[in-house]
This record gives sequence, structure tokens and C-alpha cells, in this order.
Amino acid sequence: MIETPPLVDQYCHGVLRTELGLGTFEAHLGRGDGPPAPGTTFFDTQTGFAVRRWCPPLLGLEPHCPPARYLARRRELGVIEAGRRLLRATGISTYLVDTGLPGDLTGPPELAAAGAAEAHEIVRLELLAEQVADTSGTVESFLANLAESVHGAAAGAVAFASVAGARHGCALAPEPPGAGEVRGAAARWLAAREVGGQLSDPVLLRHLLWIAVASGLPLQLHAGSGDPQSYVGEFARATAGLGTDVVLLHGYPYHRHAAHLAGVFPHVYADLGPALVRTGARAASLLAEVLELAPFGKLLFSSGAHGLPELHVVGAHLFREALGRVLGGWVAEGAWSRGDADRVAGLIAAGNARRVYGLAAA
Amino acid sequence: MIETPPLVDQYCHGVLRTELGLGTFEAHLGRGDGPPAPGTTFFDTQTGFAVRRWCPPLLGLEPHCPPARYLARRRELGVIEAGRRLLRATGISTYLVDTGLPGDLTGPPELAAAGAAEAHEIVRLELLAEQVADTSGTVESFLANLAESVHGAAAGAVAFASVAGARHGCALAPEPPGAGEVRGAAARWLAAREVGGQLSDPVLLRHLLWIAVASGLPLQLHAGSGDPQSYVGEFARATAGLGTDVVLLHGYPYHRHAAHLAGVFPHVYADLGPALVRTGARAASLLAEVLELAPFGKLLFSSGAHGLPELHVVGAHLFREALGRVLGGWVAEGAWSRGDADRVAGLIAAGNARRVYGLAAA
Amino acid sequence: MIETPPLVDQYCHGVLRTELGLGTFEAHLGRGDGPPAPGTTFFDTQTGFAVRRWCPPLLGLEPHCPPARYLARRRELGVIEAGRRLLRATGISTYLVDTGLPGDLTGPPELAAAGAAEAHEIVRLELLAEQVADTSGTVESFLANLAESVHGAAAGAVAFASVAGARHGCALAPEPPGAGEVRGAAARWLAAREVGGQLSDPVLLRHLLWIAVASGLPLQLHAGSGDPQSYVGEFARATAGLGTDVVLLHGYPYHRHAAHLAGVFPHVYADLGPALVRTGARAASLLAEVLELAPFGKLLFSSGAHGLPELHVVGAHLFREALGRVLGGWVAEGAWSRGDADRVAGLIAAGNARRVYGLAAA
Repeated sequence: MIETPPLVDQYCHGVLRTELGLGTFEAHLGRGDGPPAPGTTFFDTQTGFAVRRWCPPLLGLEPHCPPARYLARRRELGVIEAGRRLLRATGISTYLVDTGLPGDLTGPPELAAAGAAEAHEIVRLELLAEQVADTSGTVESFLANLAESVHGAAAGAVAFASVAGARHGCALAPEPPGAGEVRGAAARWLAAREVGGQLSDPVLLRHLLWIAVASGLPLQLHAGSGDPQSYVGEFARATAGLGTDVVLLHGYPYHRHAAHLAGVFPHVYADLGPALVRTGARAASLLAEVLELAPFGKLLFSSGAHGLPELHVVGAHLFREALGRVLGGWVAEGAWSRGDADRVAGLIAAGNARRVYGLAAA
Repeated sequence: MIETPPLVDQYCHGVLRTELGLGTFEAHLGRGDGPPAPGTTFFDTQTGFAVRRWCPPLLGLEPHCPPARYLARRRELGVIEAGRRLLRATGISTYLVDTGLPGDLTGPPELAAAGAAEAHEIVRLELLAEQVADTSGTVESFLANLAESVHGAAAGAVAFASVAGARHGCALAPEPPGAGEVRGAAARWLAAREVGGQLSDPVLLRHLLWIAVASGLPLQLHAGSGDPQSYVGEFARATAGLGTDVVLLHGYPYHRHAAHLAGVFPHVYADLGPALVRTGARAASLLAEVLELAPFGKLLFSSGAHGLPELHVVGAHLFREALGRVLGGWVAEGAWSRGDADRVAGLIAAGNARRVYGLAAA
Repeated sequence: MIETPPLVDQYCHGVLRTELGLGTFEAHLGRGDGPPAPGTTFFDTQTGFAVRRWCPPLLGLEPHCPPARYLARRRELGVIEAGRRLLRATGISTYLVDTGLPGDLTGPPELAAAGAAEAHEIVRLELLAEQVADTSGTVESFLANLAESVHGAAAGAVAFASVAGARHGCALAPEPPGAGEVRGAAARWLAAREVGGQLSDPVLLRHLLWIAVASGLPLQLHAGSGDPQSYVGEFARATAGLGTDVVLLHGYPYHRHAAHLAGVFPHVYADLGPALVRTGARAASLLAEVLELAPFGKLLFSSGAHGLPELHVVGAHLFREALGRVLGGWVAEGAWSRGDADRVAGLIAAGNARRVYGLAAA
């Protein structure tokens, strides 16, 4: 009923290059670090059921077929051919790819080729800082290289992403740390750090965020736990009017709060993705909740997919179906006009992302 | 399907007396202080779409007509005639009007005349204190005049409203501040203050709240950010049994928590208004969520409208439609009896407010 | 539409042995400690309307009959016969009964006999500690007796329940307190305490939780106020991998957060009960929200009923109806397969509880 243009997936990761067994595949459906509880399986989740609904038909099987049968067919086709079939059925024309997760994942060009789409890179700030630390000998060189790396990355990427809020909530304290404070923190971190060590120092996380803000590139923030009004609100207030857009990722179950912030601050945007993929049959209800307070020009589709092309498929299908059901329902009951509904669908599906990230029109 | 009596709008403001251009009108649809983000408009919100749905037909236009056409028609009629037509189509028979916002707004008598309704005043405590400070020379006279002003206001008003929770969450600390503490805070505030300066000192905000509690008039509290259980809960516990009712305003997205508090404390009530106006096509879902935990005798309709009579219209129409859909649905599936549904509709629409504010029966 | 096996009610209390007047009955429908607000009644709540919907037909009256008529019929039958009729209409085959609330309540064997069902005991930790304190002369004997009592209770009970989180949020600090800290807290508490005095010391509450964790029996935690991610999250992290399951009770309005934790931690489970009984006509919406993030093997039905067998009835009926509507709806729209829906219904209704509490198959 509701028309949507080809989608811009404003936040996702690459897909695994290796053949997957049932256990590895299942692990990507869960949300914690560990295995499922004894007697349970991650296939028994909304994500698992959504994968079984949408993906088997794309590989020639009936919907909801047993996981083992699906995995067997996937291996029969091979990881490359299965990936191509799945990605090309998403209706996504542009992927924005966070390249900051470990694992044997396809990069943007490879994802673009497999999906017959465009792809652009999102640079994850903390990984950048960790890589700079691996190759810098002194505090001075680390800080200089860090500034230069962020600057250099900004030239080739469409956005920065940060997990500062998730790693250390108060990393989003409202103002940039002082130079002396940064030097001290860098010295302590570099001294204690082994090669590959994670950045979780709140002062350095803040410093990094503010270098990124200065670049002018949109900044994507992963939600931490808890109400984002308390910790993102301050950061939003501090960065208002500086000309850098802030995109809130992964808001659920605080998605209504993220939508609220997108309504209050002109430079704050809200992401839809994982809220849909994680809730499956409930995706339309989630979309409707986000559409309560988020201005329609401030909401961005994403799949949030990581590792499995099945998750790109599910993200895109759930989104289009949810949009059709929610906006179509409002048109049917006279609350919205048909023209407005199609226009808003286009904004959330692609138009807003094209404007925010400066992508060429489709 | 569901019968509702004429509404009591238990919390709103007056409407602007001046002719409005497209930009000024649009600004009243947004929620932040600033302009919309580049490339977006506040008309692309649930509130904007709801205004375009309900208001054009009241001025002789088709629903969902373009904003510029609606504004042209509004100017053609003139602000007074447009206001009369809109307000008289709300079905609201009684307005309770918070007079504490700045701007060229109609007061209660003017709003009553325009809407062919009754109107009563709600006095905003912080503004009262700021006005007293403007005319008091010493700490002693300030504190004496403050007590007298609150006492005097209580004689003519139906309720007090406070933004203490929104300005300073811990202003709702559970007990009244000591006399010495109050004198010290007053001295500091008066010394530092210029004429017209806002009150945000937590000690004085608390002092003011407790003077108001002593008056016995219902006290309306604007929600701050964050879970009200943490900061309103303590205040509710401290004021239980004192004989003063507390009405929680603007709860969204914590409206379920406000409803919970209304269920736990006999003297706590929950407001519906802005949750409906802000969410438009989702108003029925919001109403249903509030009706989960709020006892049906503890919930009060309001529009929360400010500046535009269109917002009074939208508040009233969304409320009646939501009530019909939610309660009508429960009757249709056998969960509620028809008689109970009509009775509860009457309570939320008007009966509860008439009881709490001591208004004469319609 | 959706098949459910006989239910395991994984958390409830006994029913009152005495005949009830209208006022006492009404008091059990409210959620606070006090009476309803002037001019209101606890019958005007979702719970009150749900009781009037489901229970009168079980005693030979029409649905939604007036409360006074229902109570008269209840007294006519007598408390024992009314209780038998109500409990035997629940479809519950196994009750897990928290025996830690005061009042003239039936214990597990009596509840089992009245309901023609099985019943097992859940031991409330804080009451156990208070009883031990009543009979221990010294700090040494108190601590020794406490350990022994928990150990002894573990042999006969199916689970422990704790209200530590509700009494003192930081009682769920992540690690067990040190031995010296425990002795000091015990000395202070015992010295200050009168017979029957409640345990609310956070150090002793923590100590008690960790003795219970060591027993290996599932531990049911009552939610406090506020987001459980902040205070339960730490405890969950600290107890991960120890082999003891943690079941989160009473999550509403943070039920989505509880479901999130059940998805992240293998040993954490989420309870459904009071969220359904308290929200009545909205039970299906609540169930759907919990089913967004909770893995289907991690969710457990309960009634949370206390005092009135009507609440066991309402819990069971609302649950089955909600399950039929939500899962049946997903099957009808193709999101879930019919076989999966029946299987998941069986898990939540009984299978998960049988696995977690080691109950024999039905």
C-alpha cells in the first residue's frame, strides 16, 4: 500500500566470509556474550522466528522451515552465493557500514558488490584511537596522531560512530576535557595498556568525541543502558548549534526517549534499526511508538545487521512491512493523507539519510 | 459509540491575540526552543498532521490541506473569528487556565467568552514568587509577601501549578526546608537577581511548594526529565494524608509511571493532555497505556494547549476519538460492560476534574 | 485457537480463610497501603473490572454484575466453597506459593486441596532471617542459624524469593559483603531490633542473597522502583555462571527492561504475572511487549495472586486469552508458524517453569 524508495541502511556491519555451522549461526541471533540457557535456543526469539519467516523462501525453501534444513541449504549454495541472493533481496540500495567490529567481515566494497548496491564507511572512533595507540610511542605523538587520524578519516567516511556512552556513561559529560586532563589520561592509559587494549577511559572517550564533533561529520552514538535523557541530553545541549549532527543508535527499550530528544534538539536524529530486527513480529508496534514524538524528518532506517546477511534481509523486510501497516492504517482511518504517508515513508526509508550524510539522490 | 459529557480541560493556557504568519504558527507545533532542523518542518510531526486533520474543516477547508492555505484562510477570517470558531468546536465547557506563561495570551475571561465556556485560573507558583521578588525590598518582606501572595491567590484560583520538578529535580526532596535555610537561600537569590530573573533555587522552590501544599488547593506538578517514581515518589509519600491533591502533568514518556503513582497514592492524580496532542494518530494507544494502572477515578483530561486554539481543538478531538476507540473496543470484546464504559468516560472527561477542583456539576 | 497445557503458576500466595465484606475485598484490588481516594473505589480499576468479568459466571451470576451482588453470592456459598469453585476453574495444575506474607492465608497443601492441584513452597528470605533473629541470642548464633535455616529451607522448597531490591536497591550491589561487615551489621541490627522487626539493612540483605545463591535453588527477585538494568544488571553480572537461576518478578512498568535482561544473561528469567492481572483489558498488549525481547525459553507465567482466589482466576484467564490473541494474531498474519506458536505457548504456560524449578512433567 505505502510506496517506499530503495532503502538507505544508515547503520550496519559486514557479513561473515566463512561457512557457518548451526551453532555459529545461532550465536549471531542472541544478544549476550554467552551461550543460550540450558534447554533453550536463540532460534526461539523474535529475531530467530523472523529469519525463519523471511529468509528460507529467498533460498528456495518454505517459510519457517527448521533451522537445520535452512543451514544445510545455505551451505549447499555456499556462503558467497547465499549472501548474494539474500542481500540482493533486501531492497537496500546504499549501505553505511561501521567497520569497527572484529571478525572476518566483508568491508564496504565487498558488501556493495555482493548486494549490487553502494556502500560507504562509518569509522568507529574507539577502534581508531586503539590503532593509533598501537603505533604511537609517546603521549605527544599519540595525541597528535589521534587528531590527524580523525581528520583523515573524516575525509573518506560518511560518519563517525562511538560506543563511549555504552562503555562509560559519563564519557558524555557535557564539555570537552581540558588539555592537561587529556595528557594525564593518555599517559596513564598508554603506560598501562598492552597492544590491542580497549579504550574505556572516560576522559579520552570524551576527548575523542569532541575531536569528532569538530570534524563536522555526523556522529552516531550507541546508547548505553538507562534513560538517554539523563546522559545524552547533556551532550546534546552542549553540541547544539555547532553544526554537527548526532544520531542516536540502539535506543530500545528507550526508543521513545530517543525520539523525544530528536524532537527537542534540531541536530539530534533517531535510528530505527535494531528495535525492529530484535522485536520481529512486534516491529510495527515499535515503529509506531517511535513515530509518536520523532519529527518525521528526524528518523532514519537501519538494519543494524552484523555478520549474517539474514539480518539485513530481516531489517529491510520488517521495516517495509511495518511502515505499510502503520502508515497505511493511519491513512485508512483518515488520520493521515495518502500523499503525506508516501512522503514520510520516503523520508524515513532514504531521504533523511541522504540529506544528513550528504549522499547523492538515488 | 461511547458517550462523553462536555469536557473539563484541566490544564491549558490562553491563545495568542495576534495574527500569525506561517513561521510563528509552525513554531508552536515544535517542542524545543529552536527552529526545526535544516530541511525539516514542525508541520511534519504528529501534532502538525493532527492540526491539519481536524482544523481545516472547522474553517471551511478540506482536511489535510497545505499549511499555507490553512494559514491564509485563518488570516482571512481574522484571529478573533478563527479563534471563536475553533474553540466553540472543541466540546470543552470548562477551561482551567495556567496564566503563568509569557506572551500576548488571552486570560481566563477572554478565553471563556471566545469559547462560550467557563474558565478558571491556575496560578503558577514560580511566576508568583518572581513577581513578589520584583516588588520586595528585603528578605523579610519577600518571605512575608510570598506567604501572603500564595494565600491570596488560593482564594481566587482553582489550583496551583509548579515547574519545580522540571527546573530542579531535587526541589521535590521529601520535606520542607528549615526556616534558616529558606532565609539564606532567599538572601542569596535576591542579592544576585535582576528584575524578572527566574527562580531556580531548589530550597526556595521547595519552600514554595510547601506553602502551596498548606493552602489545600490542588497542586499540579510538571514532570521533569526522568522516571517520576524516583523524584515525585518521595514528595508524594511526604504529602500523603495532608489533604492536598497532587496532579502529575506532562508525564510522557513516563506516563505509565505517573499512572502507577496515581494507583499507589490516594492523593495523586494523573493528567492525560499533552500525551495525546503530541502523539496524534497514536493517541488511542497512549490513552490505553495510561488506563493500565491508573484507577479510573484518578485520571483527568486536558489539552495542555498553549497559544493556538488549534491545540485545544486537537486535544479535545483526539481525546474523544481515543476514548471511543479504546473503551468501545473493550466493550465490543466483552472485557468491559457498556454501562461501565460510559461511566468511566464521564469520569475522565469531566467528573474527576469537577470533584478534585470543586467545580459545580455541569 | 492456541493450545495451552495446564498452567504452572510460578509465583502466588495463599487465599484468605475468612469471609470477606465488600471493604476488605475491595482493599485487595488496590495497590497502595491506604484506602481509595474520596469519591473513588478500587473496583474502578482494570483489576476490578477483570474480576467482575471473569468471576461472577463461575459462581452462577452474569458477567459485570455489581460488586455488592457478587459479594453477597460469595458469602452465600461460603468462603470455602467459593474458593473451590474459583480455583478449580483456573486451569492451573501447579501452584508455587510464597509463604512469606502475613495474614490468615492458606498454605500450599490447603491451596492444593482446594484447587485440586499440586502446590510447592517458595521461601521468602527476609522473613526467614527475621524468624531466625527472633530466636537467636548472639551474633554468632544468628549467623550460624541463618546459614543453617537457608540450607534447610532449600531442601524442602522449590525457590527462594527476596524483596531486597524493593526494600533497599543497593542491597543488590554486585558482590557478597565481607565477613566482618556482616558481623557488624548483624550486631547493630540485633541490638536495635524488637521481636518481629523487619530486615532492611542492606549488608544483611546482600549477605542473605548470597547464601541463597550458594544453595543453587532458583532465586526470585521482586523488582524495586526504577530501571532494573541499573540495579539488577550488576547483580546478574556478578551471579552469571554460578549455576543459580534468577527470576525477575513484578517488572511493570519496566517489563521490557526485565525481558531485555532475560535476553542478555543466560541465568536470568522474566515473570509475567502481575503485569497481566493489574492491566486487565490490556493484558494482551503487555504480553506482546514482554515477548519483544524475552527469549521464549526465558518467560514464565504467574498470577502473583494474593488473598483472593479471584486473582488466581483472573491471572489464568487473562494469560490464556492474551496468549491466544497475541500468538494467534502472529500465526494469522504469517509471522509465526502454527506449530511454533503452540510450542511457545506450552513453554511459557508450564514448560519453562517445569525445567527451571525441576518439577515433574505434567
